[in-house]
Amino acid sequence: MIDRIFSTEQVDSVTSGFGITDLENATIGQCAAVAQRLQEVTGVPFVRMDQGVPGLEPCAVGREAEKLALDTNVASVYPAPDGIAPLKSAAQKFVKAFMDIDVNAAGCVPVTGSVTASFGAFLACNQCQEGKDTVLFIDPGFPIQKSQLRVMGGKFSSFDIYEYRGEALKNKLEEMLKVGNISSIIYSNPNNPAWICLTEQELQIIGELATKYDVVVLEDLAYFDMDSRKDLGKPYQAPFQATVARYTDNYILMLSASKIFSYAGQRSAFIAISDKLFTRNFPLFAARYGGVGQFGSTFINAILYMITSGTTHTTQYGLTAMLEESVAGNIDFRATAGEYARRAKKMKEVFISNGFHIVYSKDVDEEIGDGFFFSIGYKNFSGGRLMREFIHFGVSSISLTTAGSLQNGIRACASRMTDEVVELLAERLAMFNEFHS
Amino acid sequence: MIDRIFSTEQVDSVTSGFGITDLENATIGQCAAVAQRLQEVTGVPFVRMDQGVPGLEPCAVGREAEKLALDTNVASVYPAPDGIAPLKSAAQKFVKAFMDIDVNAAGCVPVTGSVTASFGAFLACNQCQEGKDTVLFIDPGFPIQKSQLRVMGGKFSSFDIYEYRGEALKNKLEEMLKVGNISSIIYSNPNNPAWICLTEQELQIIGELATKYDVVVLEDLAYFDMDSRKDLGKPYQAPFQATVARYTDNYILMLSASKIFSYAGQRSAFIAISDKLFTRNFPLFAARYGGVGQFGSTFINAILYMITSGTTHTTQYGLTAMLEESVAGNIDFRATAGEYARRAKKMKEVFISNGFHIVYSKDVDEEIGDGFFFSIGYKNFSGGRLMREFIHFGVSSISLTTAGSLQNGIRACASRMTDEVVELLAERLAMFNEFHS
Repeated sequence: MIDRIFSTEQVDSVTSGFGITDLENATIGQCAAVAQRLQEVTGVPFVRMDQGVPGLEPCAVGREAEKLALDTNVASVYPAPDGIAPLKSAAQKFVKAFMDIDVNAAGCVPVTGSVTASFGAFLACNQCQEGKDTVLFIDPGFPIQKSQLRVMGGKFSSFDIYEYRGEALKNKLEEMLKVGNISSIIYSNPNNPAWICLTEQELQIIGELATKYDVVVLEDLAYFDMDSRKDLGKPYQAPFQATVARYTDNYILMLSASKIFSYAGQRSAFIAISDKLFTRNFPLFAARYGGVGQFGSTFINAILYMITSGTTHTTQYGLTAMLEESVAGNIDFRATAGEYARRAKKMKEVFISNGFHIVYSKDVDEEIGDGFFFSIGYKNFSGGRLMREFIHFGVSSISLTTAGSLQNGIRACASRMTDEVVELLAERLAMFNEFHS
Repeated sequence: MIDRIFSTEQVDSVTSGFGITDLENATIGQCAAVAQRLQEVTGVPFVRMDQGVPGLEPCAVGREAEKLALDTNVASVYPAPDGIAPLKSAAQKFVKAFMDIDVNAAGCVPVTGSVTASFGAFLACNQCQEGKDTVLFIDPGFPIQKSQLRVMGGKFSSFDIYEYRGEALKNKLEEMLKVGNISSIIYSNPNNPAWICLTEQELQIIGELATKYDVVVLEDLAYFDMDSRKDLGKPYQAPFQATVARYTDNYILMLSASKIFSYAGQRSAFIAISDKLFTRNFPLFAARYGGVGQFGSTFINAILYMITSGTTHTTQYGLTAMLEESVAGNIDFRATAGEYARRAKKMKEVFISNGFHIVYSKDVDEEIGDGFFFSIGYKNFSGGRLMREFIHFGVSSISLTTAGSLQNGIRACASRMTDEVVELLAERLAMFNEFHS
């Protein structure tokens, strides 16, 4: 009989060294640390499918623009709370060019990564309307965002969309919104971890119910234009990135440079607040923060500004240049990120030929595309068991349960899967399958 | 009789345009906006004493190091939650060289400006001990920090130190700590807005009571080594920056690059957590965030990381270089910042010769030094009235009441006071004094 690569003793010794009592429920950071340590201790390389780290070079246009900004004196000057004017204008154009959505430049605001955007937005949304104090996650979702609510003592509820695709989403969502305690709805599209994409019908349901029940949709577009099935990424040409902004005026879009420009190190993103939400006055904001309680100025000056005092000045110039050059057609960020789809496709072939299956495999009736992540299951293994077993074979991942999913399986990340690593993965999956047959 | 420069009608029209109902209680941002708008509308330049913007060139060593980092691929890689190793080591050396304090590199962590440090520290301190849910401000203090607590729904209390200098601080502080609800004590030293510096006796009182009542001292060193009365700033040579860290093990120091390296635009700072606090386990942290509840790892990985996901990667390299070169004696940040003391000295002369007085004028028995800020009063004018009157003479400032002070007066900032601006200030103060005589 075939052996595992790492013995149970080796794995147990490392996990207990980190004070991890239950590996099946470990966080992303803990899984990454275990993989790192086992690799150090044994010298056997791990196939790292855990963290979603960009596996490509950072966009050169951004870096050069940052260098030019460093030659001016902006490094000494506090950034304005709402961002530099050229970035606001470039962000407005980017949203128009690739989403066909009109939003004022005033509502386009740089943030220290989308993580800061959601942190601030959770506070703002849970504070602005009496009785609406709960964020609703359409899961599976990004675990960090739930951790943020735990930090601030905020409330959230959630449901797994797996059983509620298409028309079924309407009743499920309305059942939750009817209660009256929901302030906002958050999801990522394309989805982290499952890479499902909400259909136009589903976005329309979300948008219309957000209007009806007066809640704000927080649309996380971290993987902007990365749905490989559509010919996206041509400025001012259809098809455009799908968005709830076509169906409601209650939205905040979050667009990060981390993945589309491989810029995760610089903590650079922007939000786009709908014009109608921006200019709306909330009495609870007025009472808490003074003034007339306008959503836009309160969110920017009274909330986001208190968290980081603006966004790194020279990095704002880098993001401006990358957005401008994308709109001008000089950066094809979509083609660059297409490398992830190529890697995912090869990985999926290797998984499927070794007895695995895609867990979230369809968007209603259409097969999902290839991209940064996908979800993988094996027989009836729970996500925790599969993740733990994978570690014994030198493959790190995270369980779908940590993303609020009720399905059995793990998240696989394609970002670091060069051809050589995929070969190694193939060998190990074959061993895994033989061991468990 | 002499006229004001701006009429009441002009001022009222601009303030009401911003929706400001009570100019005397306006925030810093609102005062700055009113000054800016009046200047635009009338073409008459304002003497800007409001915001504490560095008035010098950003440190070249930092900018060059950032450019070199931009030529590597770190811009694509998520920064580690606890910062890059060279920065942690440089920060440890900086604290030793200029404060003579020993702290492990593990406890030296970059943050997106000290604003993010205090935001995170308020959350951490108010969550880690049962019943201790209130931050105590030794006022006058930095208004942004109270705004942060308003954003997160956190509690704070405060007292004006004016009447409690020296030995008198002990009874006052103990009276407040005895209640048992205080989690942490915060102050800035040198002080924003009054430029008072706590004496060694006062720091000893704070430190010993922090140990006795088990509260964390959050020491904001934004104006590090800028006390002009002492020959500070020589690496590994006394005298050193005064600090509570000599008198307690319950501390978090906040050291910002904004003022000492004129680096406010880059949102670059670090914290130094005492070794004893870092390694201490808090059951409430374990219950809320899992693991053993260690202060250091919980604060870094479970709280700060959820706010910004680390600190801009290339900027960390800039800060590393500035700290390293300071420790090596190749950057004399203290001499550079000495320009602010020179400007403040000239401003004070102009104020005093026109009938004004320094409000917080002494540290117990010693005259305060010159630096970034100072406090100014006129006759028995309240701070709000003086600030409003100044606006009519084209001089912007902020009232001491917005900093939690009970004294009559305003904060003056020396940062942008070049010689020409001081001449303009002198003319206007003469007009002011004549008008009000």
